[in-house]
Amino acid sequence: MASEMSLKRILDARSVAVVGASRDEKKRGFQAIRTLLEAKFEGPIYPINPREESILGLRCYRSLRDIEQPVDLALITTPAVTLPAIIEDCGRKGVAGAVIIAGGFSELGKRGRQLQEEIVTIASAHGVRIVGPNTSGLINVHTGLNLVGLNQVPRGDIALISQSGNMALHLITEARLKSQRGFSYYVGVGNEADIKFHEYLEFFTADPKTRAILMYVEGMHQGRRFLQQAYRTSREKPIILLESGRSAKGGKMAGSHTGALAGISEVARTAFERAGIITVENSDELFPAAEALSGLPPISNDRIAILADGGGHATIAADVLTDLGLKIPELKSATRRKLAGLLSPNASLHNPIDVAGSTDADPGIFADCARILLESEQIGALLIVGLFGGYGIRFAEQLRFIEEDAAHRMGKLVRESGKPIVMHSLYKYAKPHAHDLLRYYGIPVNDSVEISCKCIAVLAQYGRYLGSYHRRTNFIFNWGAKAKKEGQEIIATALAQKRQALLELEAKRLLGLHGAPVTIDRLAATAEEAAAMAGAMGGPVALKICSPDILHKSDAGGVKLDVAGESTVRKAFEVIVESARRYKPKADIRGCIVSPMAQAGTEIIIGTKLDPQFGPVIMFGIGGIFVELLKDVVFRVLPISRSAARKMLAEVKSSAILNGFRGGKAVDHEALTDLLVIVSDLIESYPEIREMDLNPVIARHDGATVVDARIILGKNNR
Amino acid sequence: MASEMSLKRILDARSVAVVGASRDEKKRGFQAIRTLLEAKFEGPIYPINPREESILGLRCYRSLRDIEQPVDLALITTPAVTLPAIIEDCGRKGVAGAVIIAGGFSELGKRGRQLQEEIVTIASAHGVRIVGPNTSGLINVHTGLNLVGLNQVPRGDIALISQSGNMALHLITEARLKSQRGFSYYVGVGNEADIKFHEYLEFFTADPKTRAILMYVEGMHQGRRFLQQAYRTSREKPIILLESGRSAKGGKMAGSHTGALAGISEVARTAFERAGIITVENSDELFPAAEALSGLPPISNDRIAILADGGGHATIAADVLTDLGLKIPELKSATRRKLAGLLSPNASLHNPIDVAGSTDADPGIFADCARILLESEQIGALLIVGLFGGYGIRFAEQLRFIEEDAAHRMGKLVRESGKPIVMHSLYKYAKPHAHDLLRYYGIPVNDSVEISCKCIAVLAQYGRYLGSYHRRTNFIFNWGAKAKKEGQEIIATALAQKRQALLELEAKRLLGLHGAPVTIDRLAATAEEAAAMAGAMGGPVALKICSPDILHKSDAGGVKLDVAGESTVRKAFEVIVESARRYKPKADIRGCIVSPMAQAGTEIIIGTKLDPQFGPVIMFGIGGIFVELLKDVVFRVLPISRSAARKMLAEVKSSAILNGFRGGKAVDHEALTDLLVIVSDLIESYPEIREMDLNPVIARHDGATVVDARIILGKNNR
Repeated sequence: MASEMSLKRILDARSVAVVGASRDEKKRGFQAIRTLLEAKFEGPIYPINPREESILGLRCYRSLRDIEQPVDLALITTPAVTLPAIIEDCGRKGVAGAVIIAGGFSELGKRGRQLQEEIVTIASAHGVRIVGPNTSGLINVHTGLNLVGLNQVPRGDIALISQSGNMALHLITEARLKSQRGFSYYVGVGNEADIKFHEYLEFFTADPKTRAILMYVEGMHQGRRFLQQAYRTSREKPIILLESGRSAKGGKMAGSHTGALAGISEVARTAFERAGIITVENSDELFPAAEALSGLPPISNDRIAILADGGGHATIAADVLTDLGLKIPELKSATRRKLAGLLSPNASLHNPIDVAGSTDADPGIFADCARILLESEQIGALLIVGLFGGYGIRFAEQLRFIEEDAAHRMGKLVRESGKPIVMHSLYKYAKPHAHDLLRYYGIPVNDSVEISCKCIAVLAQYGRYLGSYHRRTNFIFNWGAKAKKEGQEIIATALAQKRQALLELEAKRLLGLHGAPVTIDRLAATAEEAAAMAGAMGGPVALKICSPDILHKSDAGGVKLDVAGESTVRKAFEVIVESARRYKPKADIRGCIVSPMAQAGTEIIIGTKLDPQFGPVIMFGIGGIFVELLKDVVFRVLPISRSAARKMLAEVKSSAILNGFRGGKAVDHEALTDLLVIVSDLIESYPEIREMDLNPVIARHDGATVVDARIILGKNNR
Repeated sequence: MASEMSLKRILDARSVAVVGASRDEKKRGFQAIRTLLEAKFEGPIYPINPREESILGLRCYRSLRDIEQPVDLALITTPAVTLPAIIEDCGRKGVAGAVIIAGGFSELGKRGRQLQEEIVTIASAHGVRIVGPNTSGLINVHTGLNLVGLNQVPRGDIALISQSGNMALHLITEARLKSQRGFSYYVGVGNEADIKFHEYLEFFTADPKTRAILMYVEGMHQGRRFLQQAYRTSREKPIILLESGRSAKGGKMAGSHTGALAGISEVARTAFERAGIITVENSDELFPAAEALSGLPPISNDRIAILADGGGHATIAADVLTDLGLKIPELKSATRRKLAGLLSPNASLHNPIDVAGSTDADPGIFADCARILLESEQIGALLIVGLFGGYGIRFAEQLRFIEEDAAHRMGKLVRESGKPIVMHSLYKYAKPHAHDLLRYYGIPVNDSVEISCKCIAVLAQYGRYLGSYHRRTNFIFNWGAKAKKEGQEIIATALAQKRQALLELEAKRLLGLHGAPVTIDRLAATAEEAAAMAGAMGGPVALKICSPDILHKSDAGGVKLDVAGESTVRKAFEVIVESARRYKPKADIRGCIVSPMAQAGTEIIIGTKLDPQFGPVIMFGIGGIFVELLKDVVFRVLPISRSAARKMLAEVKSSAILNGFRGGKAVDHEALTDLLVIVSDLIESYPEIREMDLNPVIARHDGATVVDARIILGKNNR
């Protein structure tokens, strides 16, 4: 809330000073003023340049202090070294925000980082917020506050947040040339030195002029805060995001470009999805996705009808929609009968529907078919592929008017039915008026089948998200809320002893406290005790060294499995302790843990670690070759819900193993789901836990048991 | 050779008759004549319509027979039912080819299929070849032979073969609007009733006006013949192919659309790659790929330099090229030094290279940088992303001329160096003259970063193919060439006994004859014999039922493993035989096979089967969960080379298993490679073998052994 307020004076600034104003047409300090004038910025513009009297007819000031009126925003186009003094000036003048164009900060290494920290310190002391540095600027398209020096930005309802000025230019050009949609705001986040992604997001969420938020991201500084805000934003308006910088080379490029922690980790994928963000992988799809999402209702039923004139495009559309996870159902016979009444006998009434030339003389039939299809409860959306808009060009001039009428009818149909239509047309290049009309109603027209399919897919993804929002967790830790007193004592003891890890016994006790199924272990200080304990347990046991100084027990020869018989147990105890002593002579050896051998089952590995951008994440995998050799693991940003935990089991590539093999029984999915949620709860309950490793967990058809557990302490909450 | 000759009179026809000629502007029989006249077709045009005197100023004929001069080609626009009589007329007139537009044949099921067979029979009796039916027609762009009724087809060197008229229209429109390249021919193959894909391919291979072949395929009738021809074609000119109809729905659509066996199987992927075909998955990339391949030299070194002005696009390009398997190497210091001499200190001299505004005042620097980069031996190709062509628009008018000079220099650089440049530019929409110049030199300009990267990728793929051509096999079976007399006798015996499968003993003998490592098995007719044989073998044995009537031995209780000791063997023999008798009382039971137990190792499955489009294919997988649960198998069209066999081992997802696990030794890759090649040879040697199944093969670090083998007889060579 605080940041939304402070950003309002920046993004909706009513007065702007240009520090570094210039009469040189090639300089940014000139271009910005020219563009502000051309864009008819509503408020006063104050050029600052001690050596000029006036620029473009505006009075020039020697410095910010010389301006009598209040100044909301300062655009600073001077080099990096001048910034500390200028930001100090901004603070004294009571400027709300400074947009810093210059590069030469954190993206250039240590010295630049120091300079950046210096200006942030000065700014925050005065309550000045910084956009950038190393940004192309910002635009409020509605008020004409255009600091980018870029003309002809189409006005509309999409807010654009970009870490690259070229990508912003790319998207603005595309919007202007290929659509009728436009932008409410543009912000170049630059190095994110002060204002972060999530703060812009918060502002645009509250902004009534913005219907969708388009983001180009190469890396971010406060990933978890971003996820938390995105989670709140996306139930109100869609966020469409292209993540770039995945490859080593791309990441390096991104890092040198914005100074951000480069590249979005694998972990981000599911986290973005969970936060309702529509992630796009191909930059050609980015604007069309935003166009569809800002203009059309989301799809609440992912059964799609495809309407075509001829094959080819329909075949490709069926392939691509299927690849994108959508369904192309066989039509109900009632629907087919209605279509048959309109179309020639050559037409194919299956889905994809091929009108097979039935529309050559009357393309208005497309609107009739669209109504039949969208009025069917079975169908959630319609994709039309082929030539619509081109019948008047290809066959007879007067068909143009029939197409235009059909466009009106289809536009109204979308509004009435609440179900979207997406149009592919070969004739987009000819710019027929019928296409303008479709776009007036929010129906996008693309000349790419693949991009048209992607528009359908993102509408379906957003619809699915809105329908499942209530089942999702919000990425916010309620630190300590579920902690138990005894658990806190276990951790306090370890910390008091300056240990970075819990002993296995302690880790299991902590897990057990929260309901995790752990083996019932006992600590034997002597060989005799071990033998007695094993006798009491009955059956073979496992013996493991117990020492705060030995983390990797196997490496120390500190583990013996399947030990049976009193004398064998005694012997094993002695061998283990001796081996551990040899491994680490000064180790504080407390004895051996005696545990009953776990029943046979499937080895599972569950762990948590810290992701540098998103904080604590949880990992799930199937032990043995699957994790070790095939690296088949899945991650989720913590905390997780039960339904997310359940999905993790299904998402490992070898999940079939969990469902039984060669007649074996399926493992107990509920027990593993419980365990994942317990681990999530533990991380949330004890901020002192940095990482955990449950390896192995043995899963059986009737439950699961944590056989070994490691818990590492350290700072966690970021 | 024969088909190439016969197609010449069709695709280079010097006279054409239009059967079903019309004065009605909406009819195909009118449009075709109008287009032939507009396209200035060089030869005579004969409209056929008994009810008209003349059409568009051309004398009309009552029938084909009434034409005095010879006729090369007939375009037939009348309905399906009229075809038998018209084809008969064509035959009597000595017409070389008939282009049949009408649908209503095999794509409409059994009756249509019968009609189609009828006209093919008539045609072949007269030596008439058929294009279609159910085709949009054909175009020879150079002679003006345009039977499609489609104007403004740009002339050039790309031959287009398409199974969809809409896709042809799509590609022709794209070529006209977005490139300077054009077409030599277009053929709509339709239902492939007579002339098949591979025959067109053969024609275009020999055609000197064609430099690249672009194909849209939904399914084909003679896949192996196509592969054989493609293998020959692609070392001379590139084939670019979009395969459609993969999904169930897409395949159904494709089937109803062209009557082809719908959808290209998974098997096709590697086969296409091996035949040198450049497969494209996104239809938006199809024409740009053809443009790049027809205009630029292939890439022989897949280390790419990226040159950019600003981030964003370069970051995306680095990601996408990396995903496409290309390398973006760090530049050598000598190259960096040379670049530093041209660029400002802000520039990033790593790869991607960011000129960071250095070119704002002089975009000619792009050509200077391009020369430095392509003159470096390290670099195989250059991708320029960003604004080139837009400096004259964005910064200063006179920069246009500098950009045009740079375009000339870059064009010549490509010719000199034999290394391609691909250009991405935001300003493509503005159609700057510099872009026309680049295209004149064959350098494609795209406004999509992804498509630009794909252009690089296909050039690299084609270059890689040309470099590895000699290692590839040609999809042609040399039936029987490597057969051995004893092998033929084994098969003859089985066939004489009307058996569809070899006995396990026979199968292994056949495998052994060709050098496959098989267990040394013996057939015991009695329990006593079995016990004696087991004793002689030493160690535990396997006993398996031997009966031509029992294929699935385990199901019949016909297998006992790890049997040791004389009395146990005797007992096992009796149990097996009794169990088999119960399973199939009338079975001809010949006794039990006695084999020494195989040493422990990794279970492998090798098999062959018949693919409906491509004939015999070989399968490789790792036994147990990998094949059964994870369906982790790879296929190759047979025959295969050693290098293809070696690749199969690496391509299974769980290939890490073969390299040893938890300290185990790697399995003997050479032994498995040998075995795959032996299986390939066997299929080629004995056309009577339909399918084989070696399951399991036990692979060890020092060899491999075929433990069980099934060989099914039947027709194979298609």
